[in-house]
Amino acid sequence: MATTATKMEKIVALCRRRGFIFQSSEIYGGINGFWDYGPMGVELKRNIKDAWWHDCVRNPPVGPDGREVQMVGVDCSIIMNPKVWEASGHATGFADPMIDCKTEGCKGRFRADQIGDVPCPLKPSKHPGQFDKCQLTEARQFNLMFESHAGAIADEANKVWLRPETAQGIFANFKNVCDSTRVKIPFGIAQIGKAFRNEINPRNFTFRSREFEQMEIEFFCHDKDSMMWWEFWRDTRINWYQNLGLASDHLRPRNQTDKELAHYSKACTDIEYMFPFSDEPQELEGVAHRGCFDLNAHKEKSGKDLSYFDDETKERFLPTVIEPSAGADRATLAFICEAYTEDPSRPSPELMKFHPRLAPIKAAVFPLVNKDGMPEIGEAIFRELKKHYPVQYDPKASIGKRYARMDEAGTPFCLTIDGQSKEDGTVTVRDRDTGAQSRIDKTRCLEFLREKMGAS
Amino acid sequence: MATTATKMEKIVALCRRRGFIFQSSEIYGGINGFWDYGPMGVELKRNIKDAWWHDCVRNPPVGPDGREVQMVGVDCSIIMNPKVWEASGHATGFADPMIDCKTEGCKGRFRADQIGDVPCPLKPSKHPGQFDKCQLTEARQFNLMFESHAGAIADEANKVWLRPETAQGIFANFKNVCDSTRVKIPFGIAQIGKAFRNEINPRNFTFRSREFEQMEIEFFCHDKDSMMWWEFWRDTRINWYQNLGLASDHLRPRNQTDKELAHYSKACTDIEYMFPFSDEPQELEGVAHRGCFDLNAHKEKSGKDLSYFDDETKERFLPTVIEPSAGADRATLAFICEAYTEDPSRPSPELMKFHPRLAPIKAAVFPLVNKDGMPEIGEAIFRELKKHYPVQYDPKASIGKRYARMDEAGTPFCLTIDGQSKEDGTVTVRDRDTGAQSRIDKTRCLEFLREKMGAS
Repeated sequence: MATTATKMEKIVALCRRRGFIFQSSEIYGGINGFWDYGPMGVELKRNIKDAWWHDCVRNPPVGPDGREVQMVGVDCSIIMNPKVWEASGHATGFADPMIDCKTEGCKGRFRADQIGDVPCPLKPSKHPGQFDKCQLTEARQFNLMFESHAGAIADEANKVWLRPETAQGIFANFKNVCDSTRVKIPFGIAQIGKAFRNEINPRNFTFRSREFEQMEIEFFCHDKDSMMWWEFWRDTRINWYQNLGLASDHLRPRNQTDKELAHYSKACTDIEYMFPFSDEPQELEGVAHRGCFDLNAHKEKSGKDLSYFDDETKERFLPTVIEPSAGADRATLAFICEAYTEDPSRPSPELMKFHPRLAPIKAAVFPLVNKDGMPEIGEAIFRELKKHYPVQYDPKASIGKRYARMDEAGTPFCLTIDGQSKEDGTVTVRDRDTGAQSRIDKTRCLEFLREKMGAS
Repeated sequence: MATTATKMEKIVALCRRRGFIFQSSEIYGGINGFWDYGPMGVELKRNIKDAWWHDCVRNPPVGPDGREVQMVGVDCSIIMNPKVWEASGHATGFADPMIDCKTEGCKGRFRADQIGDVPCPLKPSKHPGQFDKCQLTEARQFNLMFESHAGAIADEANKVWLRPETAQGIFANFKNVCDSTRVKIPFGIAQIGKAFRNEINPRNFTFRSREFEQMEIEFFCHDKDSMMWWEFWRDTRINWYQNLGLASDHLRPRNQTDKELAHYSKACTDIEYMFPFSDEPQELEGVAHRGCFDLNAHKEKSGKDLSYFDDETKERFLPTVIEPSAGADRATLAFICEAYTEDPSRPSPELMKFHPRLAPIKAAVFPLVNKDGMPEIGEAIFRELKKHYPVQYDPKASIGKRYARMDEAGTPFCLTIDGQSKEDGTVTVRDRDTGAQSRIDKTRCLEFLREKMGAS
């Protein structure tokens, strides 16, 4: 236990020292459950969200039917008409009395009416209803959504909530999307955006935050094909994390048991990851079969016809929904934890092995010495590259120190201009992970990065 | 007046019909002051934000001192420690009684204590304090920030606000950024994110919304250089809008008068734009000289030393701040209004002339007829392009109808595979704005788009 805790502490310290993640409002003592991304963190998180948008919306894999998968995006407001949350069940179903466990290593929060059914996460009492080793609080009523008021007077009539998930914005726009585009079932609608949950018990760095960002897809299909699409999205999403660098043995897809499944759901896989802060895998994303529960709820509440008419079969039906719902902050934290590498033999004993697509800085350009025509070549390369990618130019300090700094920031490639560069027009490319160097022509630097970056 | 109103109505209708912008929660009757971006709108707004991030953070122009401009980003939480808003003055200074004008064509909202000093926007009574032609409400107390509570119990102790601007997150992180990066003054910190204002009187489509997104820069410099940097950012930002397509005669930079300027400010230019909904130019962005007002306020309130130490001059000082503060939704609306073009002589009487960098769809690929080997060539081109850019493939309907559909969505290029394609391997490229066609080799499509897209 001591060593895993230490590794997480080192990661948190590096995140602060190198500008990945800061406590929100740190100069005022912070605020529990809220975090800020610094200069490195904002680029990393942008890259993760952009990779998701590119790989899921703009260029998804070919579908299980051998055809292009149709995807479009939306970007909905955080504050919506409160009836949305009455329809979804969040306004009522979630307002349950909660019990906290104060035991060190557990600190779970449970619905009071489920305390007999759920296992306590604290070992060894890992059996439903066995809380004899836990310090439990009294049941307390929580405001599960953040509540506010829109307009001059704060009364019931203008009460609003901050959305607790981005999904409902997609369902509420299902008809608008069908009417304004030429998508035909099967198709998906994607959204990236902030959501807020007040019942969250903040802990484990950014993993449990009260404000967080989601990357959600609602994929609408015919019920008869729904298990095929559920399998497609489950596999697609697992592959996505692996392709961007999460080791397969750290990723633990887990099928929900029949008891865990919502009553309307046929299947759900939680894609879990082995974070250093726990011996148990923790959820990154859920890929859920949601039946037609949500569209039906909005149809009932709004009185609007949300059914879909199939031109070819002349059939009218409420589509079945597959929902891959990912956390952008959790994905960011997972990629940070996976990238974090200790190697005492290197000038930088800590390095971040980010995939090139995710790395905040794609390349650094160094003149070996800051004279003899090397800076001129270096600056020209830098100015060309920065039109296309985030890159840095650094003419000072020893070359070893400059490499070390870039290793710690996770920069995959360092391009160095040396004596030979003036003679044959080549520069060295140093690979972050192996330290190996090769030479490429100075006119090929952009092409080199493009190849390494793959799709984008 | 009738024609301008009609043009705006047509734009609003096209935005809904083609999936640019929907009313939030439309199936529940909407919610005043909140809007959703549909499949086209989300791509357009993403492109605008990405262009801003690229042009301001990753690849800003060379500075007025002839050197690279140093820029980094942050991404802060929407809910911060409430002391941030006490320091900034938002918690106290903004909570003023407001008076609404109910007159058609005005509908302004004014601070009750300033009603004698401000002009009524309704012509012809455009003189300070002359409200004799207006229907004014009683003064009402507004909740100017959206208020909420973090945690189980909603009391004063856990009151929080939704940020009314992204700027304060930057100031609160100034020291963290200095400590975690190697930026030296002059440098800037940029942020894109949502903000919320409750006193907003929603009107003019998305122009005045209660939830909106900002793109803000706080540029920290030495006071002696501050006017030079203010001019640099003012010109850089005006050029940015022009380079992306806003006509120079629709852009109206306006220097604030001495009376308008905040007491700590030496200069401020409002970059205004002639929207079709008004005869008066409306603010897109403010480029303000803010002195060291904000850092000083946080220094006082937090008790933390936020001064900067200059290694070279050995001087310690609070930096002066230049703030280019833009609205992402307002920029999106301006680019939509500018792009909107009526041309009854074309198959699509309405078309959207978006700059290629901003267009939601960069290119469409059409086989002239859906047989004779044309679909195979078209699909191959489509599959190659979609790895890099949002593109669409459409094999059906008459070619004129397909062009028209793309014109309305603002797609700059249509690539058509015709009989000649099989013989010489070329395809036609049709230019949206001129309708002119030329031929390029089918292997050059990606290169062609890259050239047209410029930086990205």
